[in-house]
Amino acid sequence: MTTLENDTLIRALLRQPTPYTPVWLMRQAGRYLPEYNATRARAGDFLSLCKTPALATEVTLQPLARFPLDAAILFSDILTIPDAMGLGLSFAEGEGPRFARPVRDERAIGRLAVPDPHGELRYVVDAVAEIRRALRGRVPLIGFAGSPFTLACYMIEGGSSDDFRTVKQMLYQRPELLHRLLDVNARAVAAYLNAQIEAGADAVMVFYTWGGTLAHAAYLEFSLAYTTRVVAALLRERDGERVPSIVFTKGGGPWLEAIAACGCDAVGVDWTVSLADARQRVGARVAIQGNLDPLVLLTDPDTVRHEAERTVADFGRAAGHVFNLGHGIVPATPPDNVAALVETVHRVSRVN
Amino acid sequence: MTTLENDTLIRALLRQPTPYTPVWLMRQAGRYLPEYNATRARAGDFLSLCKTPALATEVTLQPLARFPLDAAILFSDILTIPDAMGLGLSFAEGEGPRFARPVRDERAIGRLAVPDPHGELRYVVDAVAEIRRALRGRVPLIGFAGSPFTLACYMIEGGSSDDFRTVKQMLYQRPELLHRLLDVNARAVAAYLNAQIEAGADAVMVFYTWGGTLAHAAYLEFSLAYTTRVVAALLRERDGERVPSIVFTKGGGPWLEAIAACGCDAVGVDWTVSLADARQRVGARVAIQGNLDPLVLLTDPDTVRHEAERTVADFGRAAGHVFNLGHGIVPATPPDNVAALVETVHRVSRVN
Repeated sequence: MTTLENDTLIRALLRQPTPYTPVWLMRQAGRYLPEYNATRARAGDFLSLCKTPALATEVTLQPLARFPLDAAILFSDILTIPDAMGLGLSFAEGEGPRFARPVRDERAIGRLAVPDPHGELRYVVDAVAEIRRALRGRVPLIGFAGSPFTLACYMIEGGSSDDFRTVKQMLYQRPELLHRLLDVNARAVAAYLNAQIEAGADAVMVFYTWGGTLAHAAYLEFSLAYTTRVVAALLRERDGERVPSIVFTKGGGPWLEAIAACGCDAVGVDWTVSLADARQRVGARVAIQGNLDPLVLLTDPDTVRHEAERTVADFGRAAGHVFNLGHGIVPATPPDNVAALVETVHRVSRVN
Repeated sequence: MTTLENDTLIRALLRQPTPYTPVWLMRQAGRYLPEYNATRARAGDFLSLCKTPALATEVTLQPLARFPLDAAILFSDILTIPDAMGLGLSFAEGEGPRFARPVRDERAIGRLAVPDPHGELRYVVDAVAEIRRALRGRVPLIGFAGSPFTLACYMIEGGSSDDFRTVKQMLYQRPELLHRLLDVNARAVAAYLNAQIEAGADAVMVFYTWGGTLAHAAYLEFSLAYTTRVVAALLRERDGERVPSIVFTKGGGPWLEAIAACGCDAVGVDWTVSLADARQRVGARVAIQGNLDPLVLLTDPDTVRHEAERTVADFGRAAGHVFNLGHGIVPATPPDNVAALVETVHRVSRVN
């Protein structure tokens, strides 16, 4: 059992007091870092980078060498699961993900099976173990997966989409088919996250990235219900230590209370929500992670400091805040702005 | 003064009882109708269609000839105002709008002036008058404009954008510049809508289409504050009849209470919000317009009937609901599905 040198993230996720607000950033290992681009060039392409544990470990650690972040997050992609199901994932340069064999009818859905995390997904489990060894207990490692519904969107559309109309046609016309697909996905995501926990993840996060896409009732029935199942199936502890779970929903403002009741320890929110409101609505039940607009990081260090300070003040002085962006860092971000952000969050939140 | 034959829309917007729930659809005159495409082909291009009152009248009336809709909406575009300000609007085939002269610095913003609705925008006022004559009081005519912030987004980016990063850089780094631009826009939008009211619009709507883009506090400061100014400057009556105002914000769920307090008569909501929740949150103050997912109209008449019935039931039996989609009709919509929708809303909402 490793005792963490810096356990502020874990404590904040469990709503315990911390000396300052911990901070990590979605896509903190990514294209805004020259060293990331160098490693990726060596890997050849994005998917090879994900599938080579030594390289995934290297890029996971890169932002920690630059900034005093309070967590590492596994470098991977949410689409590893459908890829392991045999859908044939690829990333064309400059475009989004593509599946060679999208899943659109009864037969294709009937053939889907939960991939063995120690089989086709072994490279992810190996990466988690290798990153954990490399971290040597400095900060916690966050594992992650896409939500069952987010995965279904890509699996059905065969890639990204402006409006996910193929998914929605199935949702409205063949709801029972979509439910069957989501059931497989929920079991796959739970097994995958548990394997990450066993291999060394100290916390896990489920991403739902298409908030604002689903109608109110449909989100509850087709998205949150399956994320709830995933959370219920997660290991709560490893070696006697609690492993907290985070559920992040982009555009999740309208469902905050429902998400907070899904069994997770923390809810990630985007920048359209006020942290003060979120804390009032659900802060007695869960920790809150968020929520600076990632585009603030395209400005300058002074503006970043000002906006970071506002975000910390918006949550207020209380336990249970993990500072993050409301979505991933964009590639054009100057690393100096990230340095200013991390420094400011630590400084202004410090309890004297 | 024309007395309306069918005034259910006006009554519902004012939260007065109606024999059934009135229904109209955003982009009800549009590319899903073959007759629209025929008129547009005659016009040559989209902008000529907007700028020729006889043709704008023709397409405005087309959906009313097919479906017993409870309102007509002026056929036009939200970007007529910046076009009249001299920014040089064009629509390339298959692409979005483009401005030849985007507004990005102090000098360009300093040169902006409120266009005279009876000058450069005369074609819109003429279209309103001509549509009203052609309607002969059958149903009310809704006028509209983009919100000051929505217009600013296009004016600064020079067109559409995935993330409006140029706008946001100005918002975070030069807020005073953006405020100056928004002040001109608010005065322009108010003058434009009042000219539409004087020419015959029976209700008006302000569109904010980039909800989910702005951070919580930024939405209040840069968007809602200026929409509030517009609403405060609107004529409340024409010929002794109340002219209700609607404020529609895509992704506006997190700000529902604030929007409802802006002085408008009705709030338009998208499908991520439950109408029951919306009614509970703000229904005592304003009418609610919405909120079927437009992609439901890509399914089949039975599915459309089922979902329309659910939407009517979600609001429940009470005054103050105007049925609409949560955003515009998509071009691939089969007109038969629209017929099924309008018939269902009227039938299931009818008070016996």
